[in-house]
Amino acid sequence: MNTLVKSGGAWLVSPSLAVVALRKMRVSGLATSSSSSSFPNWEGGVSMVQGASRGIGLEFVRQLLENNKKGYVVATCRNPKEATSLSDLKNRFSERLFIQKLDVTDETTIEESAESVRERYGSLNLLINAAGILSIPGVLQPETTLNKVEKSSLMLAYEVNAVGPILTMKHMWPLLKAGGGSGTDREVAVVANLSARVGSIGDNRLGGWHSYRASKTALNQLTKNVSVELGRRKDPVVCILLHPGTVDTDLSRPFQKNVPEGKLFTREYSVQKLLHIISNAKKQDNGKFFAWDGQEIPW
Amino acid sequence: MNTLVKSGGAWLVSPSLAVVALRKMRVSGLATSSSSSSFPNWEGGVSMVQGASRGIGLEFVRQLLENNKKGYVVATCRNPKEATSLSDLKNRFSERLFIQKLDVTDETTIEESAESVRERYGSLNLLINAAGILSIPGVLQPETTLNKVEKSSLMLAYEVNAVGPILTMKHMWPLLKAGGGSGTDREVAVVANLSARVGSIGDNRLGGWHSYRASKTALNQLTKNVSVELGRRKDPVVCILLHPGTVDTDLSRPFQKNVPEGKLFTREYSVQKLLHIISNAKKQDNGKFFAWDGQEIPW
Ligand SMILES: NC(=O)c1ccc[n+]([C@@H]2O[C@H](COP(=O)([O-])OP(=O)(O)OC[C@H]3O[C@@H](n4cnc5c(N)ncnc54)[C@H](OP(=O)(O)O)[C@@H]3O)[C@@H](O)[C@H]2O)c1
Ligand SMILES: NC(=O)c1ccc[n+]([C@@H]2O[C@H](COP(=O)([O-])OP(=O)(O)OC[C@H]3O[C@@H](n4cnc5c(N)ncnc54)[C@H](OP(=O)(O)O)[C@@H]3O)[C@@H](O)[C@H]2O)c1
Repeated sequence: MNTLVKSGGAWLVSPSLAVVALRKMRVSGLATSSSSSSFPNWEGGVSMVQGASRGIGLEFVRQLLENNKKGYVVATCRNPKEATSLSDLKNRFSERLFIQKLDVTDETTIEESAESVRERYGSLNLLINAAGILSIPGVLQPETTLNKVEKSSLMLAYEVNAVGPILTMKHMWPLLKAGGGSGTDREVAVVANLSARVGSIGDNRLGGWHSYRASKTALNQLTKNVSVELGRRKDPVVCILLHPGTVDTDLSRPFQKNVPEGKLFTREYSVQKLLHIISNAKKQDNGKFFAWDGQEIPW
Repeated sequence: MNTLVKSGGAWLVSPSLAVVALRKMRVSGLATSSSSSSFPNWEGGVSMVQGASRGIGLEFVRQLLENNKKGYVVATCRNPKEATSLSDLKNRFSERLFIQKLDVTDETTIEESAESVRERYGSLNLLINAAGILSIPGVLQPETTLNKVEKSSLMLAYEVNAVGPILTMKHMWPLLKAGGGSGTDREVAVVANLSARVGSIGDNRLGGWHSYRASKTALNQLTKNVSVELGRRKDPVVCILLHPGTVDTDLSRPFQKNVPEGKLFTREYSVQKLLHIISNAKKQDNGKFFAWDGQEIPW
């Protein structure tokens, strides 16, 4: 367990008192009320983390299991047999963790996952879409300039980063509607889609990374679009977009040398902050795009 | 030729004095200067209209040929043999109109088009990306709700509406850089990408049309991204995004019954307004998203 230490305006991580620190923290720019600012504020419920084999998704699974003592977690990944870190968690939390195969590029596996959750739990209270790609050696290279843009890269990033989450939302929707906030301290079920600040058009000052940026911008629009629809239908679900900060994972590794001192977050720290936002999400947050610190990011 | 008549805050179209009216018009929200507010303000140069067989693209070709007496136009389309309206224009403007095959889903045809322009003219001063899809019977149906979202529709709309224009920009870039504003009254070459207000995330209040919306939002990000890069490199090119209004074409036809009285524009009117914006585009407009009336649209 870690503690947050305020250092020069940023929260850093050091071992031991995180839960206490988080209980005291108020996330600015996010709707909060005194009754719901403690963490975690759900004690049961069923959460799905989509893209849970590594990185931020895996850390969500770990913290949801460790901090949410009565909650169930469905962790999905492309290759359950190779997901050794998830298997380790399964050994610790055999009753409360269920590992399910789901590849966002194969819609059948999304439908099968929904069916398997329906049979096992009947509903969902939280869906975190964490899977995402930025670079794949020999396949997808973040573009530094217009003449390096390739059709195959644009299409692949879109398929995984934008189409994947919306198809997952589509198939999990009946389960989320059935779940709402029941069994948790929230009023609503939450869909949290991992976007990225570089997906912001208004905040784009550097250029580059065409495929990744455009896919996250599209994810933002698709999530906003669903939020408008569910708001009108008054479904007991809230959709939000999250920027985790720059987090020390395989995804960011090739680009970490340019990250300013103190701005590369641990997975533990980023996920604590994101779970704080998720656990406080209210109807009025529906369709918003939050950074790890609760600040809204422009479109 | 048509005249603009102010009616209840909106400009409507009536026959006869358009050029005079446009000379007097100042487009709000857009950088203008007295020396460049007349229309048209380029007298030569080579313009490419990509997606010119029908609708708004075809009308751009017509007005560019009729109003820009010394200019050359390269009109591209998927099936030149079936583009009967372009053939009619070719009969009237045989010297100044060149029809070229280009299918945005087939990058080879984009490269071949660039090569053919290079051989014939050596440079470009204007690129208008007009091709776009919203619905195709039996293939692509604008989604009314999340559970109608299909992967094939998302991917196809992205391929045509977002990937198509950026690949066209990629291959035309050397020609645009070579052209800049030379032979025209502008300082710069212009890339004008036809986006749509429904691509705005900030302005999304209705939901629906997931595939089309997300593809246009991605186009906005890709265009902004290129504008940042070229701004840094100081290329003599400016990229802008345009919303033409709701225009009476095949694309809007299935949805026209919901358009309020006086809000369905003729192609003539919309393209006059858009050419006014294009002809006044300056370096400080690079990366901006303008509606037909010159107002900026939020991301
Ligand atoms: N790290 C950062 O600094 C940062 C910053 C901004 C936003 N984000 C976003 O945060 C999310 C998590 O990133 P991360 O840093 O944790 O990345 P990561 O360590 O590279 O993990 C990516 C995850 O996505 C999964 N995945 C990839 N393709 C998939 C597919 N087709 N189907 C299902 N799962 C797939 C991977 O599974 P496999 O193990 O099977 O490959 C892995 O679990 C991403 O959406 C990313 O864009 C990260
Ligand atoms: N009309 C409106 O109210 C409206 C509103 C907002 C934005 N827009 C945008 O304005 C642009 C023009 O729309 P429009 O109303 O003129 O549409 P339209 O009348 O339906 O014409 C569409 C054009 O795109 C071409 N096209 C389609 N797929 C193509 C491909 N793969 N490769 C090359 N060309 C292709 C078509 O060629 P074929 O003849 O070969 O099919 C046709 O020339 C679009 O980008 C649209 O999204 C229109």
